Amino acid sequence: MSTEDLFLRACRREPVKRTPVWIMRQAGRYLPEYRALRQRVDFRTLCSTPDLAAEASLQPLRRFPLDAAIVFSDIMAPLQSMGVEVDFAPGPVLAKPLRDRASVEALREPAPEEVAPATAETIRILTRELGGKVPVIGFAGAPLTVAAYLVEGKGSKDFSRFRAFLRAEPEAADLLLGKLARTTVHYLRAQVEAGAGAVQLFDTWAGLLDPATYSERALPHVQAILSALSSSGVPRIYFAPGSAHLGDLPSSSGADVLGVDWRTDLREARRVHGDGFAYQGNLDPAWLLAPGKGLEEAVCSVLDAAPDRGHIFNLGHGILPDTPLESVETILRVVHDRSAS
Amino acid sequence: MSTEDLFLRACRREPVKRTPVWIMRQAGRYLPEYRALRQRVDFRTLCSTPDLAAEASLQPLRRFPLDAAIVFSDIMAPLQSMGVEVDFAPGPVLAKPLRDRASVEALREPAPEEVAPATAETIRILTRELGGKVPVIGFAGAPLTVAAYLVEGKGSKDFSRFRAFLRAEPEAADLLLGKLARTTVHYLRAQVEAGAGAVQLFDTWAGLLDPATYSERALPHVQAILSALSSSGVPRIYFAPGSAHLGDLPSSSGADVLGVDWRTDLREARRVHGDGFAYQGNLDPAWLLAPGKGLEEAVCSVLDAAPDRGHIFNLGHGILPDTPLESVETILRVVHDRSAS
Repeated sequence: MSTEDLFLRACRREPVKRTPVWIMRQAGRYLPEYRALRQRVDFRTLCSTPDLAAEASLQPLRRFPLDAAIVFSDIMAPLQSMGVEVDFAPGPVLAKPLRDRASVEALREPAPEEVAPATAETIRILTRELGGKVPVIGFAGAPLTVAAYLVEGKGSKDFSRFRAFLRAEPEAADLLLGKLARTTVHYLRAQVEAGAGAVQLFDTWAGLLDPATYSERALPHVQAILSALSSSGVPRIYFAPGSAHLGDLPSSSGADVLGVDWRTDLREARRVHGDGFAYQGNLDPAWLLAPGKGLEEAVCSVLDAAPDRGHIFNLGHGILPDTPLESVETILRVVHDRSAS
Repeated sequence: MSTEDLFLRACRREPVKRTPVWIMRQAGRYLPEYRALRQRVDFRTLCSTPDLAAEASLQPLRRFPLDAAIVFSDIMAPLQSMGVEVDFAPGPVLAKPLRDRASVEALREPAPEEVAPATAETIRILTRELGGKVPVIGFAGAPLTVAAYLVEGKGSKDFSRFRAFLRAEPEAADLLLGKLARTTVHYLRAQVEAGAGAVQLFDTWAGLLDPATYSERALPHVQAILSALSSSGVPRIYFAPGSAHLGDLPSSSGADVLGVDWRTDLREARRVHGDGFAYQGNLDPAWLLAPGKGLEEAVCSVLDAAPDRGHIFNLGHGILPDTPLESVETILRVVHDRSAS
């Protein structure tokens, strides 16, 4: 059984000899070799240059026995093909936020092959380099989450301008979200064709919405994307952190795997969404800043709360830049020891 | 029936002739007269000078027929009496964040009369000026929320250093939270003695914790505070936004009234917490940036979702600085029209 099997089998809720592990933002600033790479090249160049993006994606796998690679990219990558320029400072910043229907109508809908081709090319390199040892995860931002940055113009605590736009301009919002959804389908299909063994849809800001607005504005576009990917046969992971107040709505996203954030009790998530999913998560990334016995126990608690079949161990959010490497080693050691059957 | 009765009766789930309304941050930057006041005086001086703080508290009541005043202050106000200097830029900034047990042990526990006496004095002025027409709400930050700033050193998206501190130093964390809780009891008792007709405990960052950590670290201190206030006879409001993942834990806070944030469905909050509470909330503040028919309908939706007895209309978070005054007028008009029995 190759480690590729571990991750993909867990996604399909098949028996595994131990729980697979990967870490959100595993290719990131906590790694000295990533910081060295970033001293040579800026974030945008790194994302858009396949050789460099592949190098960043492979760095954590050279150091740790992780069970999946994730392509190094950014959820804003497809926007260039839609005619939108995005800077990073370090979060996304837009020179011209979309604030009205006219600017949404002016947004270009790219042809499939135009959507951030560097990401698929990076996946081709990764697939070749990894030679089937572990699978490559492709990803995209969910339409609502990408739209939040497009309208707000930058990251925000509460995206209140974006929320006001959703309220005041529901038709323009749907037009925007639809354009993003169709572009995202092209983008993820190209990633699967390039060799991605699974895809994850990040819906970081879904939790900003009340259930009725999420159900009306955001969820249909998630369903359209994940449904369009169903014929690809790869597992589809949906991660909407901070969305416990949305109840069981994410159950109808069309995902095979639900990501669970660190705040949500994993047993409660399983109760709400049921046995029809694999679950990915959900150790608090802050635990990794405090290495020691407590961290080991916290890893065990996550394993105890997880289903017998269909668990992919991960953090409940991206790994923090200040994380000591030793904490990642601890996690891998404990998961390997404790989950072996 | 005076308007004082409206608010306090609703807090006690008694019948009212119409739903009372107040607005979180009603004394704030959306008001031109507040911005003018702030041009003359900085935020810290405003909070610590009773005449000026009373003026800020009264500004929204001169303009709008609101059913309660809230004392103008800040959740960080008691910290000076504990030996901690806080600046505002504009959020709280600490020169020396608490990061270890020694700095927690060094934290001074003030005598009751030492805790931010300006707040009680402001309430005395307000009570006199308002002459019983509407009640004055006193408030404090919950220990967890104040501790988040003390440890992190400033506002943050996810307070990861604070979360790591809670994990790595549970005993120091409990010591810190206990000192804050005892100081908060002094602070709120003084506000009630000065004439506050109700008190609200703001637990803005409770939602950063998973249920087990909230239950172990945060909730016992909330219970201690609200229980110590029970003999005062005034309604106690607990507001922990973004805490749907905590399930029914806030039900055991000891509050009479639960604040509900805009993301949480008010009917679902009532289902989770039951009929033993009044509910305060929960219009999305972003709606107010989009005045018009939609805003009116959104106000009606909140009224429809609220209990027949025991509803205080409010926003689901503080009013946004860009809010047009017209939106506040709309809210008051619709609540007055639609909730009259």
